[in-house]
Amino acid sequence: MAAKYAVERAREREERGVVATYIYELAKADPQKAGIAITLANGKTICAGDCNDGVTIQSVSKIFTLALALGAQGDRLWTRVGREPSGSSFDSILQLEHENGIPRNPFVNAGAIVVTDAILSNYRPKEALGELVQFVRSLADDDEIIIDKLVAQSEAETGHRNRALANYLASHGNLRNSVEMTLGVYFHQCALSMSCVQLSRAGRFLAFGGATGAGGRKIVSERRARRIAAIMLTCGHYDGSGEFAYRVGIPAKSGVSGMILAVVPGIASIAVWSPGLDTRGNSLVGTGMLEDVVDQLNWSVFA
Amino acid sequence: MAAKYAVERAREREERGVVATYIYELAKADPQKAGIAITLANGKTICAGDCNDGVTIQSVSKIFTLALALGAQGDRLWTRVGREPSGSSFDSILQLEHENGIPRNPFVNAGAIVVTDAILSNYRPKEALGELVQFVRSLADDDEIIIDKLVAQSEAETGHRNRALANYLASHGNLRNSVEMTLGVYFHQCALSMSCVQLSRAGRFLAFGGATGAGGRKIVSERRARRIAAIMLTCGHYDGSGEFAYRVGIPAKSGVSGMILAVVPGIASIAVWSPGLDTRGNSLVGTGMLEDVVDQLNWSVFA
Amino acid sequence: MAAKYAVERAREREERGVVATYIYELAKADPQKAGIAITLANGKTICAGDCNDGVTIQSVSKIFTLALALGAQGDRLWTRVGREPSGSSFDSILQLEHENGIPRNPFVNAGAIVVTDAILSNYRPKEALGELVQFVRSLADDDEIIIDKLVAQSEAETGHRNRALANYLASHGNLRNSVEMTLGVYFHQCALSMSCVQLSRAGRFLAFGGATGAGGRKIVSERRARRIAAIMLTCGHYDGSGEFAYRVGIPAKSGVSGMILAVVPGIASIAVWSPGLDTRGNSLVGTGMLEDVVDQLNWSVFA
Amino acid sequence: MAAKYAVERAREREERGVVATYIYELAKADPQKAGIAITLANGKTICAGDCNDGVTIQSVSKIFTLALALGAQGDRLWTRVGREPSGSSFDSILQLEHENGIPRNPFVNAGAIVVTDAILSNYRPKEALGELVQFVRSLADDDEIIIDKLVAQSEAETGHRNRALANYLASHGNLRNSVEMTLGVYFHQCALSMSCVQLSRAGRFLAFGGATGAGGRKIVSERRARRIAAIMLTCGHYDGSGEFAYRVGIPAKSGVSGMILAVVPGIASIAVWSPGLDTRGNSLVGTGMLEDVVDQLNWSVFA
Repeated sequence: MAAKYAVERAREREERGVVATYIYELAKADPQKAGIAITLANGKTICAGDCNDGVTIQSVSKIFTLALALGAQGDRLWTRVGREPSGSSFDSILQLEHENGIPRNPFVNAGAIVVTDAILSNYRPKEALGELVQFVRSLADDDEIIIDKLVAQSEAETGHRNRALANYLASHGNLRNSVEMTLGVYFHQCALSMSCVQLSRAGRFLAFGGATGAGGRKIVSERRARRIAAIMLTCGHYDGSGEFAYRVGIPAKSGVSGMILAVVPGIASIAVWSPGLDTRGNSLVGTGMLEDVVDQLNWSVFA
Repeated sequence: MAAKYAVERAREREERGVVATYIYELAKADPQKAGIAITLANGKTICAGDCNDGVTIQSVSKIFTLALALGAQGDRLWTRVGREPSGSSFDSILQLEHENGIPRNPFVNAGAIVVTDAILSNYRPKEALGELVQFVRSLADDDEIIIDKLVAQSEAETGHRNRALANYLASHGNLRNSVEMTLGVYFHQCALSMSCVQLSRAGRFLAFGGATGAGGRKIVSERRARRIAAIMLTCGHYDGSGEFAYRVGIPAKSGVSGMILAVVPGIASIAVWSPGLDTRGNSLVGTGMLEDVVDQLNWSVFA
Repeated sequence: MAAKYAVERAREREERGVVATYIYELAKADPQKAGIAITLANGKTICAGDCNDGVTIQSVSKIFTLALALGAQGDRLWTRVGREPSGSSFDSILQLEHENGIPRNPFVNAGAIVVTDAILSNYRPKEALGELVQFVRSLADDDEIIIDKLVAQSEAETGHRNRALANYLASHGNLRNSVEMTLGVYFHQCALSMSCVQLSRAGRFLAFGGATGAGGRKIVSERRARRIAAIMLTCGHYDGSGEFAYRVGIPAKSGVSGMILAVVPGIASIAVWSPGLDTRGNSLVGTGMLEDVVDQLNWSVFA
Repeated sequence: MAAKYAVERAREREERGVVATYIYELAKADPQKAGIAITLANGKTICAGDCNDGVTIQSVSKIFTLALALGAQGDRLWTRVGREPSGSSFDSILQLEHENGIPRNPFVNAGAIVVTDAILSNYRPKEALGELVQFVRSLADDDEIIIDKLVAQSEAETGHRNRALANYLASHGNLRNSVEMTLGVYFHQCALSMSCVQLSRAGRFLAFGGATGAGGRKIVSERRARRIAAIMLTCGHYDGSGEFAYRVGIPAKSGVSGMILAVVPGIASIAVWSPGLDTRGNSLVGTGMLEDVVDQLNWSVFA
């Protein structure tokens, strides 16, 4: 079976990347860890390795807040954030300065902060977080999903770069709420704690035309699911998005904790986890697992 | 039928974009023109509108030279050019300066010039062009495909920006042949003249796993076809690649003459043409035709 | 007399620039205002126009904090901030990103924030401000100089761009104290309120070899005075520094309130004020007054 | 005597910088060489060390072409080139892209190419070079000054970066003549071969108010001399201009051969030479000699 085989190969790799250290809680992760969960259209989830470990999903959360914000605001959101790959690293201010405070896409940090700010136009801060947790729980059919407040706090303490971005956005008039309130919600959303199993279930709506599976509940329109998947493919791995599309070939979004959520349209929602990162901040071993699975099952969208 | 319907809608559009004027020969194109050709796995080509007009394919040629260069040099090519979307316009020198003479991808002009230079390590200039024409004729099963020398010359005369790029590459040691020789071949490859019908046939190998169709001749490996398609999706429309993926959702490469070659993996190779360009240099009406066809037939790779 | 003549000409000018509006208190300034004060080596101050109006000196304060920080830390300061003109606007983050958190010079905002932070390594926040006020009073021999707390507060409220810069510096490890503490002092130093007369007296040490005049008190070494003047000439007018050197030809530092402090080495310290700014944020009429005086008296350092 | 002392100290320095290697003829220079010549207002030239060695002056020539172009075109020239320090290295294309083909100042390579092109609007290529040689000979009162054609040719062969810049300028419509013609003249002007003695004499007009000395021939207006000196101070050492102003404190222009021409307004014209360069491309030992002389004689314009 592909999942098991991928984890076995993952365990054997010598090169495991480097665990992110800028958030204290993430720095403690064991680079030997590796897990995978694959949820199919029939609702069945296959998993292997450390697929039940709870891990903060970090930037993978940007997918869920984007879906929420599009639900609340529709295409108006796109006046405040673009849809183009960035050509620079995930926390670049440079691009922002070039383009007068309009982030390139919703998956660079600046763009995700704008998306969070957009949600805050519909909800108050605590409500917004409640809404987000509720949304993710509902997507995954799992009420145990929580926010890891220790990690959220840890991020808030070391978040100078994100504070710089948010203040920069504010100076361009592209934040509607206060910097601290928006960042507060942003740091908490990054600290959503999920296992690979939970995450692969939460990602179903992007794989199955906006629904939780064949004949499942409709979460977003088919068109919206497709479009979010398109942004995942072109922008989901920061400045390594082109490389990921080239090597793996499916829409996916990575997080600095080593989590990646990937979708095979019509076929599967996949979550992988391994904490070591490559030089561009994407899970090294996680990417390898996805490459193995996609190769073996011929799941590339380009095949 | 989708092709005919798309052309009909295309003819009715009021907004038609702006015809490129920097090459004299292109400036004469009639923005009312619109054509489409769809070649299916069974080898059948459906077409509508001005699908038999011969047009220089301009940057669409970068696909064919990339395939040739990968054939001649294999993955060594990737030490000289990257695979990431550029985050800037097609002829940007800025990105090049940031990254010390390594172009972001083979579809920005600087990258395509490096690819052409790579081919010249295996062939002499005239041979290289002969080889390229032969390759494209063979891909399309059509010996009538030629290079429009008038357009090639016209490009050579106004190609200051490309000369700047080539000299810049040379100053970083990323050209093996002389600037003028490399540019000479480059300007000629852009002047490959093809109709939509011819182009859709030439693109089959990217749609059908490296072969010219179901049971057809093998041109490149399945893996290479898939990978070129991935680069088309992330980088094929310059700084509008994210937008195209979002709206249309299939791998495609555009040219400044208003040609676009798109592929639906396993299903179809599509060429569209309409000379008016949007602000990012991609065919406005052509993109609309692709959007119509893909929507109608549910051909997005993200669905 | 040159000062009087310059003010008369200043009053007659039709083009008066645009008053800065981003700080509420500054926005109220009357663009018709124009003042000048010239303090000579013998201690005599000549003045004309609105030369006794108290105005917050804004970025002109960067000169005084630089002198204080060099006094406290010596050349160690230059490991944290450069001495080159910036080639971009005063609050650019771009340059900072290019150069990994080392601001180009102490007169762009990011550089001045680092300088303020350096002072805070020797003093606590309130002490630091007390020390600064004391220093400026002593330079000017005038105990009436104060900080305008209303303006300081107004700056703090709208200072998103400076907050972005400070957080960015912190993310690169180039702040030793907390962002809020450093910015608190920074906003207050910008709100030092002085008249042209007071400012021209405070600037004497830069004109007279580090002393308050011929035979006056020694404030800094001759070498340090000379070097600060050099930075004023190359960096004192943000991205208009080259233009100012070209047209006027003496070391000077401008502030967004329309104040400029200029020095004619060995001869005079000059303060001019007029609130309207040119497109680069420097006093339009103030620059004109300096040009008139320098032309008339042949005071250019290049003559 | 200051000149002799400076050379003695220069000979003893251990750190001598790195000789430029990109032009074959320059690469042969002996880093132990060091020369200085100081021409005073009374016409007397004091010199020491290798002050009679003929060396191509490279970028120092930009001063003379600027004076010629201003003579031919007046202030119209400033519509095509700016007067601000560049904030980046001497051959940066980046800045050019940001500012749509208008070089920052006449002393970065792109700016100097525009200046050369401007001269070609008044003279044919051979005439232009003849005019330039005649101008420099007349400035120096020395008919032996020639162009080193071997070096000119050597530059032409390796000038990819300059060709990139010139083509880029052409693509923005900021060249009036053909790229090759303009570059031909440009490469030859850089190959003007002069000794320190000759160069210090040629620079007199910038030191003595536009005239060749006290009571000498008028070459340019006092105002123009002053203004060219201002550009030398803010832009004369590429991205090391701020540092040079800080450490030495007089207007100067350096060349990649290790030549520097400096002026002390009203007092002296100084040429120094030593071939080893610092990391920013300016003569390391030459800068040291100027620092010694200026310190000893208190010649800083900021004192």
